[in-house]
Amino acid sequence: MLKHSYRCPLRWSDMDAFGHVNNVAYFRYLEESRVDLVFRLAPQHEGQELSRGSVVSRQEIRYLRPMEYREAPVVVETWVVDIKAAALTFASVIRDSDEVYAHGSTVLTPYDLQTGRPRRITPKEREFFEFYLEKPGLAEAKD
Amino acid sequence: MLKHSYRCPLRWSDMDAFGHVNNVAYFRYLEESRVDLVFRLAPQHEGQELSRGSVVSRQEIRYLRPMEYREAPVVVETWVVDIKAAALTFASVIRDSDEVYAHGSTVLTPYDLQTGRPRRITPKEREFFEFYLEKPGLAEAKD
Amino acid sequence: MLKHSYRCPLRWSDMDAFGHVNNVAYFRYLEESRVDLVFRLAPQHEGQELSRGSVVSRQEIRYLRPMEYREAPVVVETWVVDIKAAALTFASVIRDSDEVYAHGSTVLTPYDLQTGRPRRITPKEREFFEFYLEKPGLAEAKD
Amino acid sequence: MLKHSYRCPLRWSDMDAFGHVNNVAYFRYLEESRVDLVFRLAPQHEGQELSRGSVVSRQEIRYLRPMEYREAPVVVETWVVDIKAAALTFASVIRDSDEVYAHGSTVLTPYDLQTGRPRRITPKEREFFEFYLEKPGLAEAKD
Repeated sequence: MLKHSYRCPLRWSDMDAFGHVNNVAYFRYLEESRVDLVFRLAPQHEGQELSRGSVVSRQEIRYLRPMEYREAPVVVETWVVDIKAAALTFASVIRDSDEVYAHGSTVLTPYDLQTGRPRRITPKEREFFEFYLEKPGLAEAKD
Repeated sequence: MLKHSYRCPLRWSDMDAFGHVNNVAYFRYLEESRVDLVFRLAPQHEGQELSRGSVVSRQEIRYLRPMEYREAPVVVETWVVDIKAAALTFASVIRDSDEVYAHGSTVLTPYDLQTGRPRRITPKEREFFEFYLEKPGLAEAKD
Repeated sequence: MLKHSYRCPLRWSDMDAFGHVNNVAYFRYLEESRVDLVFRLAPQHEGQELSRGSVVSRQEIRYLRPMEYREAPVVVETWVVDIKAAALTFASVIRDSDEVYAHGSTVLTPYDLQTGRPRRITPKEREFFEFYLEKPGLAEAKD
Repeated sequence: MLKHSYRCPLRWSDMDAFGHVNNVAYFRYLEESRVDLVFRLAPQHEGQELSRGSVVSRQEIRYLRPMEYREAPVVVETWVVDIKAAALTFASVIRDSDEVYAHGSTVLTPYDLQTGRPRRITPKEREFFEFYLEKPGLAEAKD
């Protein structure tokens, strides 16, 4: 199984009035990482169309410890825990070499912009994302 | 059971390059609503200390339909589905009079800023949030 | 001369780690106000096309006093100080009934999305924005 | 004269519904660059206190060409064009190796958090920022 690893720089403005990185900013980090995987990396392979249309249909973060702004990027590691007919489920960890800050889970649905409707994952797309698929039996990794 | 209802104005900048309200913005709407309930409304009652320190320890949104910027605010309805020793779980619906756009779930943990540690919910706090507590047996409301 | 007046709600997240509304958020307030004037109000009148394409080509804010998050919206008052062949200059004040928080200045250029180029202001557009034009001789109002 | 140079990564969410980097995001790039110069670099030198308290009292951007999200950071180059008793004026250019996207100007005022008032620049601070000061006679660089 491959893990997608993305170094995501923080911004000072990610902190809120309590002086910690705001809980909403973590979803930006997931987005940045997803943009790298789905919009930049996937289209380098044949038949990948998610960059042309996809929607987040569910997402969740569990926060493990507070974070303050620092120069060093955090690392967002992402892999696939489920591939359904019309939905990919990603698990993510936001971490650095010392600590894990949060666990994330994102369901992405392919979306046909012309019809304005969800669509099925194509065989080529499935093939690409299976490289990142966690094997059954190890599937508790989300927690 | 009370439901907290908050009219949350959108901003044009909540939309992303796809011309829809970005999935991350929905968490801002939950935050705005929570600020109203926990930072403004709760402190009007005796013994409410969450506004002085609390952290989001988990949150989730399930997206039901896309939204575009419009003048009319969305309504964020929030109620309590669980009160544990050191965690309040809120359920939210983001809606207007016609449509439901998303369901949210948020776990809030009281936090002692002086010690930098989670703390227990006080009896006064429990008393306040029980007004918003969904009765057992109806607890599937999150879905 | 008309002044466009827009009540702009703050968000708690507009504050930064110093506990004040971040200087960048004030430009969001100008944007929200401009969306109301140029995207909502102007198109109710004949021949107004700026909502289909326009770019900010210069903007400036002078900050007079710090602001903290509060429930009450701020008011953004905007009027026109100059109309050139291909540029509208707006002056804005961000205020409430007690205080002035900032002065803003924005140059907006009509933009033809099909050609990807700036274009001239049409006579109908000029006619509309002249209602908001400050008369020469009073033009120091920016300060 | 030194120029401070900061490589600022874009975020996909910096784009707005028109598919360009939103004009407000450019002020975030200036902020990120200023955080690097004033909060990170300056405190490595003796007697620099601006990181403990300073406010932006005026800022301006002139936009030269639209920008889309891309992987490569933009470079924010910043230097000092004026040092007054209680105000530092910075000029900035947002660019990459091919293009200049915007010119910025920022006035920063030292701020005493204890008294809640502006304060004067200290000799040590002046000494540090003079390394970045453009010599008189070249002072049109803002344009």
